[in-house]
Amino acid sequence: MAKNNEKIKVIPLGGLNEIGKNMTVIEYKDEIIVIDAGLSFPEDELLGIDIVIPDISYLVKNADKVKGIFITHGHEDHIGAMPYLLKKLNVPVYGSALSIELIRVKLKDHRINNAKLNIVGSRDQVKLKHMSVEFIRVNHSIPDAYSIAVHTNQGVIYHTGDFKIDLTPIDGGLMDIHRICQISDEEGILLMMADSTNADKPGSTMSEKSVGAGLETLFKKASDSRIIVATFASNIHRLQQIADVAKMYNRKVAVSGRSMVNILGVAKELGYLETDEHIIDLNDIHKYKDNELVIITTGSQGEPMSALARMANSEHKKVEIKKGDLVIISAHPIPGNEKTVSKVINFLLEKGADVVSSDIADIHVSGHARRDELKLMQAFAKPKFFLPVHGEFKMLKKHAELACEVGVREENIFIISNGDVLEVDRRGARKNGRVPSGRILIDGLGVGDVGNIVLRDRKHLSEDGLMTIVVTLSKEDGRILAGPDIISRGFVYVRESEGLIEGAKDIVQSVFDNCDTRKIREWAYIKNTIKDELKEYLYIKTKRNPMILPILMEV
Amino acid sequence: MAKNNEKIKVIPLGGLNEIGKNMTVIEYKDEIIVIDAGLSFPEDELLGIDIVIPDISYLVKNADKVKGIFITHGHEDHIGAMPYLLKKLNVPVYGSALSIELIRVKLKDHRINNAKLNIVGSRDQVKLKHMSVEFIRVNHSIPDAYSIAVHTNQGVIYHTGDFKIDLTPIDGGLMDIHRICQISDEEGILLMMADSTNADKPGSTMSEKSVGAGLETLFKKASDSRIIVATFASNIHRLQQIADVAKMYNRKVAVSGRSMVNILGVAKELGYLETDEHIIDLNDIHKYKDNELVIITTGSQGEPMSALARMANSEHKKVEIKKGDLVIISAHPIPGNEKTVSKVINFLLEKGADVVSSDIADIHVSGHARRDELKLMQAFAKPKFFLPVHGEFKMLKKHAELACEVGVREENIFIISNGDVLEVDRRGARKNGRVPSGRILIDGLGVGDVGNIVLRDRKHLSEDGLMTIVVTLSKEDGRILAGPDIISRGFVYVRESEGLIEGAKDIVQSVFDNCDTRKIREWAYIKNTIKDELKEYLYIKTKRNPMILPILMEV
Repeated sequence: MAKNNEKIKVIPLGGLNEIGKNMTVIEYKDEIIVIDAGLSFPEDELLGIDIVIPDISYLVKNADKVKGIFITHGHEDHIGAMPYLLKKLNVPVYGSALSIELIRVKLKDHRINNAKLNIVGSRDQVKLKHMSVEFIRVNHSIPDAYSIAVHTNQGVIYHTGDFKIDLTPIDGGLMDIHRICQISDEEGILLMMADSTNADKPGSTMSEKSVGAGLETLFKKASDSRIIVATFASNIHRLQQIADVAKMYNRKVAVSGRSMVNILGVAKELGYLETDEHIIDLNDIHKYKDNELVIITTGSQGEPMSALARMANSEHKKVEIKKGDLVIISAHPIPGNEKTVSKVINFLLEKGADVVSSDIADIHVSGHARRDELKLMQAFAKPKFFLPVHGEFKMLKKHAELACEVGVREENIFIISNGDVLEVDRRGARKNGRVPSGRILIDGLGVGDVGNIVLRDRKHLSEDGLMTIVVTLSKEDGRILAGPDIISRGFVYVRESEGLIEGAKDIVQSVFDNCDTRKIREWAYIKNTIKDELKEYLYIKTKRNPMILPILMEV
Repeated sequence: MAKNNEKIKVIPLGGLNEIGKNMTVIEYKDEIIVIDAGLSFPEDELLGIDIVIPDISYLVKNADKVKGIFITHGHEDHIGAMPYLLKKLNVPVYGSALSIELIRVKLKDHRINNAKLNIVGSRDQVKLKHMSVEFIRVNHSIPDAYSIAVHTNQGVIYHTGDFKIDLTPIDGGLMDIHRICQISDEEGILLMMADSTNADKPGSTMSEKSVGAGLETLFKKASDSRIIVATFASNIHRLQQIADVAKMYNRKVAVSGRSMVNILGVAKELGYLETDEHIIDLNDIHKYKDNELVIITTGSQGEPMSALARMANSEHKKVEIKKGDLVIISAHPIPGNEKTVSKVINFLLEKGADVVSSDIADIHVSGHARRDELKLMQAFAKPKFFLPVHGEFKMLKKHAELACEVGVREENIFIISNGDVLEVDRRGARKNGRVPSGRILIDGLGVGDVGNIVLRDRKHLSEDGLMTIVVTLSKEDGRILAGPDIISRGFVYVRESEGLIEGAKDIVQSVFDNCDTRKIREWAYIKNTIKDELKEYLYIKTKRNPMILPILMEV
């Protein structure tokens, strides 16, 4: 009993066998800490769903143990679930200045104003009874990203967070390799969890700085054009580089897109972005010549409502694409977005713009370590046990194989699933049991109220629409007093199919005509008969299966 | 008048600024011919739509002129609209033996048995009054693919169809370069239309034969494994190569997936596929050891209902994936399918299979010419005028630039849209006018009956579901006799939201209570008031906007 209590439990609640909603629980004795609380964006089949967050019922059940949430960095897939988590569990939150500020903005939208937000620096430690949680700087596609080392008397649990090794970082902040090595030497890293996003990609990810050179080449060539650059709002180093190149070529910078404007504000305020008077208001772009302008915009993923998509569709109020404009898409399409990005590019080209995307120029780099960097990380940390995290199964598997290659013993490497409990102590590690886990769907204000039945109905409605049949019956003798009335939506264009609707009414009428009078009062029977007969009729006539909703009323 | 009549009209009805539904009209004097009649698969936003075909109203209007449909090859994007076209316009159809057989299968499904199908060979000409239509062999990812030369007294209109230049084709049938050169020399090619699919890809597409070598390498290594190969059913040369390598390694071949079984039957019957007793029934695979088996399957695009996806999800009745299986995906994901393919791969890996896809081994080649081949085609044909076809705008543009590079005069190159009329004769070419064009949506048996209203409703229903409100009123005094009854679907899980439904009932009741008695009879007014008030109520409560359907009845 006491012995079991000495084991550290590591429980991923999100981020395994998926991209997104990263969240990891570490439990030791009577203390629980949570690393990250991210969201993921819904897959296509989750109709109408806004975002997806991890199931946190294990944390709610053990609320008294939870000592804090420790944030690696400020991307949505690491902080997006914070408002939902804090509503249930108002524990202290720790993260870098930028992470905390981005959380603050998010909480404001949710009208949460009692959160206990704490800014920490690199090498800062938050000391608990049995654990001490240390933040260690890494490089990533957002400034101020940390990995996290949890010191215990059993050894250190090290979580890399999302990272890359950028030897020429924009802000001069190298990954703190020294500290990782030091911990490994002095205490030993018992278990490492590491970012698997690019575990199937050979070599090393290029430095963010290489993007600057790529941009400069394009700016140089396009000396007569207005330049529009689409990128991720949160990549502040990218924004810095665009602003720097703009300045070099005497161009003013204007910004379009709500998230881009917001983050620019935060970044300037916190001093993450060095800019000066060459940032102008988007309303003032008409005061400058084309070759005096750069517009930085959202929409690098082709999102239909984004600023770039609106420009491409001539729906942007302030920016009209014209012949000669150079549009630079400084991003890769995230898997699943290839078609929307391609659509936007086609529209931009049709309007006469030149479009340069990252497949033909060096204008984007990933924020995630590739295989050579992952091997370096193994060399720094030298973990005894290894748990690949953050990735689909194929990435986790590749990462496990890589760890094996560089010398981690095969039996010390674990590929597990969200909700699995990995128990680890000085003597060993093993998968032992599960806790509740899964995805909670957020739709509007609803948290988890959209389940499989609602989704199944939405899918049904989306494919074939519906037909509602209303009949009012007499309470006395069950005869029809009004109806059958039929209303359909999303099924057929009614004017073209009057015969079909009339035929459907006849079917319903005949159900009543042919019904044994004793059964008139068995509404379930009548409704099912109407459903069955209409379904067959409509399928024969149209090869479609609308949802059929019979409604009976009695007066 | 007579002069205008001498002009040849070239009218693309599909395939421009899009991938798919290829169809080109050529009209000269009182004769019209149609090259191809393809379908495209619906984009995500076309909810519930099965397939999309071109608008053929121009052909229907000019039915007396239409002399025939000339098919380049048997892919769906070239023959998929045939049943719909022939139902309106039963004109003769010409194509290769394979194309015609695939059309015959398709027409059978549609119970069309009076089609005038004609098999033609390479260099065969179909002579009309003013045009003579010649079929010229090209290479593509389906056997027996033709380009089409239309001979007229103004010169030749040459349509490459989909093509690549495969110098080591599987069936020995080289593209008929000689005939193209001969026509160019003797008659001159007035206008060329050419496949733009790979116009943005440098170099040349590899020979289909290279795939055989890639497969052999994998078969050699996996000497203990069962091998499963997923590929496109219509790529019969690919099937031949898989069968050949299987034979080399003493493996029997079984086939899974309806379209794969069908096409294998057609191909064997017509002699396109040389196989012998080493093809076995899928029911007999248990009689063989793993290393004596190859299973060829559909599902290379991750289609959810395909045989491979069913294997990955443990839903396949005859094939269960097990540790050690080698799954070879001999295809590239078509843009938009990346995620579904990735999902299938993850499931296969989780079951312990090894998966090799075309990004890590030479096991797939495209059927479309890349830039070097497109330049060769320009060199063979030496067209005076050039019209890039088959591709999104960005591809058409790249193809136009390529033509310019190799010497076609810029003013002789046309980037036009579906429905545009390109008039051409010996003296010149120009865009002149438009004919009706667009997409016709097929949903079940409905051809074009699903329009924007139905699609908008489906989208609305898919995102937030619906709420139906039924009230029965008295004819005499307008008071409520029954209801309000409320039924919702796809909105919220009702058990969790009884208060919400009760609240909604109260709102509806209060609309009646507060309504001026004179207005009770104005149903449009009442319905709109119910809609508005419920909409606001539900949005405040849920931040969702279900479709609201008020139904009033009178007895």
